[in-house]
Amino acid sequence: MSENQFQKLVSSFSLLPGIGKKSATRIGFHVLRMDPASFQSWINGIKEARERLHFCQICGGLTEETICNICESSKRDASIVCVVEQPEDIFFIENTKEYFGKYHVLNGSISPLDGIGPDQLRINELIHRVDEGEILEVLVATNPTLEGDATASYLSNLLKNRDIRISRIAHGITIGGTIEYSDQYTLGKAIKSRLTL
Amino acid sequence: MSENQFQKLVSSFSLLPGIGKKSATRIGFHVLRMDPASFQSWINGIKEARERLHFCQICGGLTEETICNICESSKRDASIVCVVEQPEDIFFIENTKEYFGKYHVLNGSISPLDGIGPDQLRINELIHRVDEGEILEVLVATNPTLEGDATASYLSNLLKNRDIRISRIAHGITIGGTIEYSDQYTLGKAIKSRLTL
Repeated sequence: MSENQFQKLVSSFSLLPGIGKKSATRIGFHVLRMDPASFQSWINGIKEARERLHFCQICGGLTEETICNICESSKRDASIVCVVEQPEDIFFIENTKEYFGKYHVLNGSISPLDGIGPDQLRINELIHRVDEGEILEVLVATNPTLEGDATASYLSNLLKNRDIRISRIAHGITIGGTIEYSDQYTLGKAIKSRLTL
Repeated sequence: MSENQFQKLVSSFSLLPGIGKKSATRIGFHVLRMDPASFQSWINGIKEARERLHFCQICGGLTEETICNICESSKRDASIVCVVEQPEDIFFIENTKEYFGKYHVLNGSISPLDGIGPDQLRINELIHRVDEGEILEVLVATNPTLEGDATASYLSNLLKNRDIRISRIAHGITIGGTIEYSDQYTLGKAIKSRLTL
């Protein structure tokens, strides 16, 4: 058993998000077992994706061009911009088919413990977009975490003197979920955010 | 959003064992965000591992040489050989520090539904090793699955006329586990394999 070289291979995979040591070991063996042609095309696929994909200069989302399809599209409502933490969040919101506005990626959330303040995020870019005058609503879709909440408050304060609506996606009981199995914080939020029927 | 190229990237990762579509998406974004130098050294690490690591010509385990350390070592008991399904199983058994013999990797288990019969496994190589005369015990450490059990029975039949001991690792209640939470099959095995105190 050559631990050394294999440990390095396992480390290559365990630095990927969500991959523990046991998964990395299985992936390592899988990669060692690939035949040379499959391995080469696997590597080339990843390299090609990195060469061709960029982050949109306006919204920060993923694109093969300089400006992404959503920012370019005249069919999308330019009066509303949805603010998300990560480019991948755009995918998940697009999948809902419930949102037809534009996006803005912050590339993270305010987290003093990790040394991430407003200056490390794409907040100035958002202000510039708002100041162009076309945006009437900023929908903050940061995660319902301490950091996501702090970021939402920060943005809300920053934008409150401008004549636009600032909204936040609702938090509440999951569709198909029950009151019994909701955690107390979610249930609390669901009660505070109750809607008149 | 450029779905096409990104979908390809996600597929590159979701073909790895244990990686679903959501994990593959997160890994894809992680790889896109790596700076060029980190990405290059990540790719080079994987390539180098593939170039330097081989499967041992005797046992089928992982090595940087033609023959692995365990097969080469005169400190390991050559009279007992532990038969495992996959090279990675050697790692897990070595970690126990309870086994000091040699190994033999089958590269799978008998599985008619997947078209894997004895000829697709390294069984002939095992027979050759046994026929060299030094081996006194074959410890079958295939998994406690339908396929692993079938493989163990097959090997036991194949070797029964030779003057050697054929053993199988014990199955029973996990250390720290309780009878209440053991599944019925494990508990049944534990009763059948009971030891005299």
